[in-house]
Amino acid sequence: MKILLSNDDGYLAPGLRILAAELSALAEITVVAPERNCSGASNSLTLEYPIRAELADNGFIRVDGTPTDCVHLAITGLLDDEPDMVIAGINAGANLGDDVLYSGTVAAATEGRFLGLPAIALSMNAHDPKHFASGARVARELVEHLQAEPLPSDTIINVNIPDLPYEELKGYQVTRLGHRHRAEPVIRDTDPRGRVIYWVGPAGLEQDAGEGTDFYAIREGYVSVTPLQIDLTRHSDIDRLNGWLSRMAR
Amino acid sequence: MKILLSNDDGYLAPGLRILAAELSALAEITVVAPERNCSGASNSLTLEYPIRAELADNGFIRVDGTPTDCVHLAITGLLDDEPDMVIAGINAGANLGDDVLYSGTVAAATEGRFLGLPAIALSMNAHDPKHFASGARVARELVEHLQAEPLPSDTIINVNIPDLPYEELKGYQVTRLGHRHRAEPVIRDTDPRGRVIYWVGPAGLEQDAGEGTDFYAIREGYVSVTPLQIDLTRHSDIDRLNGWLSRMAR
Amino acid sequence: MKILLSNDDGYLAPGLRILAAELSALAEITVVAPERNCSGASNSLTLEYPIRAELADNGFIRVDGTPTDCVHLAITGLLDDEPDMVIAGINAGANLGDDVLYSGTVAAATEGRFLGLPAIALSMNAHDPKHFASGARVARELVEHLQAEPLPSDTIINVNIPDLPYEELKGYQVTRLGHRHRAEPVIRDTDPRGRVIYWVGPAGLEQDAGEGTDFYAIREGYVSVTPLQIDLTRHSDIDRLNGWLSRMAR
Amino acid sequence: MKILLSNDDGYLAPGLRILAAELSALAEITVVAPERNCSGASNSLTLEYPIRAELADNGFIRVDGTPTDCVHLAITGLLDDEPDMVIAGINAGANLGDDVLYSGTVAAATEGRFLGLPAIALSMNAHDPKHFASGARVARELVEHLQAEPLPSDTIINVNIPDLPYEELKGYQVTRLGHRHRAEPVIRDTDPRGRVIYWVGPAGLEQDAGEGTDFYAIREGYVSVTPLQIDLTRHSDIDRLNGWLSRMAR
Repeated sequence: MKILLSNDDGYLAPGLRILAAELSALAEITVVAPERNCSGASNSLTLEYPIRAELADNGFIRVDGTPTDCVHLAITGLLDDEPDMVIAGINAGANLGDDVLYSGTVAAATEGRFLGLPAIALSMNAHDPKHFASGARVARELVEHLQAEPLPSDTIINVNIPDLPYEELKGYQVTRLGHRHRAEPVIRDTDPRGRVIYWVGPAGLEQDAGEGTDFYAIREGYVSVTPLQIDLTRHSDIDRLNGWLSRMAR
Repeated sequence: MKILLSNDDGYLAPGLRILAAELSALAEITVVAPERNCSGASNSLTLEYPIRAELADNGFIRVDGTPTDCVHLAITGLLDDEPDMVIAGINAGANLGDDVLYSGTVAAATEGRFLGLPAIALSMNAHDPKHFASGARVARELVEHLQAEPLPSDTIINVNIPDLPYEELKGYQVTRLGHRHRAEPVIRDTDPRGRVIYWVGPAGLEQDAGEGTDFYAIREGYVSVTPLQIDLTRHSDIDRLNGWLSRMAR
Repeated sequence: MKILLSNDDGYLAPGLRILAAELSALAEITVVAPERNCSGASNSLTLEYPIRAELADNGFIRVDGTPTDCVHLAITGLLDDEPDMVIAGINAGANLGDDVLYSGTVAAATEGRFLGLPAIALSMNAHDPKHFASGARVARELVEHLQAEPLPSDTIINVNIPDLPYEELKGYQVTRLGHRHRAEPVIRDTDPRGRVIYWVGPAGLEQDAGEGTDFYAIREGYVSVTPLQIDLTRHSDIDRLNGWLSRMAR
Repeated sequence: MKILLSNDDGYLAPGLRILAAELSALAEITVVAPERNCSGASNSLTLEYPIRAELADNGFIRVDGTPTDCVHLAITGLLDDEPDMVIAGINAGANLGDDVLYSGTVAAATEGRFLGLPAIALSMNAHDPKHFASGARVARELVEHLQAEPLPSDTIINVNIPDLPYEELKGYQVTRLGHRHRAEPVIRDTDPRGRVIYWVGPAGLEQDAGEGTDFYAIREGYVSVTPLQIDLTRHSDIDRLNGWLSRMAR
């Protein structure tokens, strides 16, 4: 079994290193990851400029591009042997609810959707996690179980892990993404030359975060496992929109 | 009525200018758009560096950030009066099927999802469109109809317009996103200093492009209107995943 | 006579526009300038990525690169007809003393050193100049005089103009570059996510700024004209260094 | 004795690592270097955005900025104890003649000109050097000799080392910078989307490369040592320019 690893924190991030070490017992691991931190990169793909891939000292391949570039490059030409699946992470910082839209970690996983096995995104619920080892063990359990009982290849699963010792995790919970309120206001400041600058503010407070959501599971100490889709069609709106358009004068 | 316009081709793009001119008859228009071309930016949000907004000569506000940064900044602090809706475009180049995942145009629209009216993304089906005027007229029709008969505020619609004179458009078709095959391989080349470079290759061929899809509508000469969602949960997978996890040894 | 104009404030900067308008009476003008503000770019040259040149709406050619890239590209392949000289500016902000090392404006001028006529860098002594017209008239006077009485082609002149109405300028003064004390300390701050950031602080105070220096001339209301060289060899140190090395044990 | 090291190839470059190892026997070493390759960066200084400094795994401090940013930051606020001198390199690739204008390595050294001891830039004459050890030994010899017999603090020396085993080096030669012909034309190409791109071409051929120049010394197998200045005034032109301006009608 061949697993492609990537992330959005950059090829030197500890979460990636720990993940690679843990999974190397189960599969042949190749890491293709961004040269630098790309948090918030979402699915952005570098179309205007070329990208380069270089073998780094730690044996990982580093790319001067986004997480999506990394996986795209790996599976459409860089690697001689196609991997069976892609795993992204382990991210320092949760990817819950609406955050998923902006997440480079989730984007790296979804870019692997054309491979033969499910794609997995892994994130620790802390900006400076103390328990990456818990995340790594979760990764191993999931991969081992996938080896025993495969899931359809178009499955994408978003996994968030409480930053706790493994023994304190309460188990797994399958969840849906919660939703947040609108983000906090941008933070207006002035640079030392007197020009106005803005910093993107914190994510909004949780709005839909009750039982069944990823927010809830994490808060309760569970590993949250959310199935994702890449079909952005809101099928339930098609009829309404048909009616609406039929009444449009033209 | 206040409309916020943005795009991913940059604040000087002709499609944006034509859109602003057309809609200024219907509403109060504010444009907040990237300083430079951000095609492929997806929902990327600038978290590590501050961003700046500047009033440009053409009356638009230009931002040294991504399409998502522009709309985020506009509705969380930059503008004194909150807009009622956001419209992104008119993009030079279609945003169909899986392309939507990578699209800065669609991302700009979805970032407006917290406003009081639907968000709209508009794209012409040509890289160098000759008929932006058709797209602008489509935009006006949609906004006029929204004024007469509102849609729920959480509606996001992705509109693609054939690059044809308005009279030759066959009408509107509500569609679902089609799907593509995997992208063409990256293009490997060597830079003049002898180092290997890669360019992201063309999008994959259409795989699911039959009747009912956006690919099909456009090909037949219709304006394609696809309702989008930002909830990436694949709800239909929740039960299966529950079963699968329950059989996982731990 | 053909003049190539460039700058480091970007192709839309008012100083560049005014300069182009003023000189178009004297010569055939081509503008090749950066897409965006590149202050502080020095002579940096883009070696790792390709650059693009595009004809902008205002008739200028904009380049996604540095000031040095612009002039380099223009005279080594982009333009069909080689210009006779390059003029950079008019910069918003003086380029005096040690600032010249970091200046993209001066770098753009020096990149034109292989052409048939002298290269000129022009800067107003104000961050938001009110009297670009004075700078433009200075530029015209210099070019007219060069047409009447040429200077050697390897001449590079750095011109700084007080931000005053033309009539209040006291005349021209040929100067040497002054020197500054070390820059003020970097400004340490914390971003909204709690990470430490640093902003480059203000330039140092004037240290060598007496009569004969560019600092002095500007302060007294004169247009400062400093001949520059690109030979960075400190010839006066060669003997000393020879002696020093001869005493080195090896 | 405290030495600050930096470079333009990035904090992971082998030339920097070897230099740090070699000099740690002689002095207390601190490394502050760019996060990524900044070749061609010249003296560019980041004025518009903040920069960050982070302690990397290898004990070096990496900065998301240019070589000049690194040294500027280090000596104007980041370090508790001011270093006595700065050494930049060892660069993979020579910095000879006009190349020095564009060199980030030389820029890093010159940014250290306010310290108490000379600044040194070191470069190997090969793009993929086999004999960094020779460069490191040269560095040690120079520093040891500086400790025994100091040079004035405003001395900046640009050292280029043939890529040969140490025993094959013929010795040191104090040189002046040679000069090149104009650079080779930019290389025009088309990207996979059909848009024209340009790559900066190779440096020009040697024009002034005879005895006494750095080009010559290197070619003959000597370590080239060139004293540099940062005063860009061409003092020899001041009289001529005075005469010329006096004849300008106004």
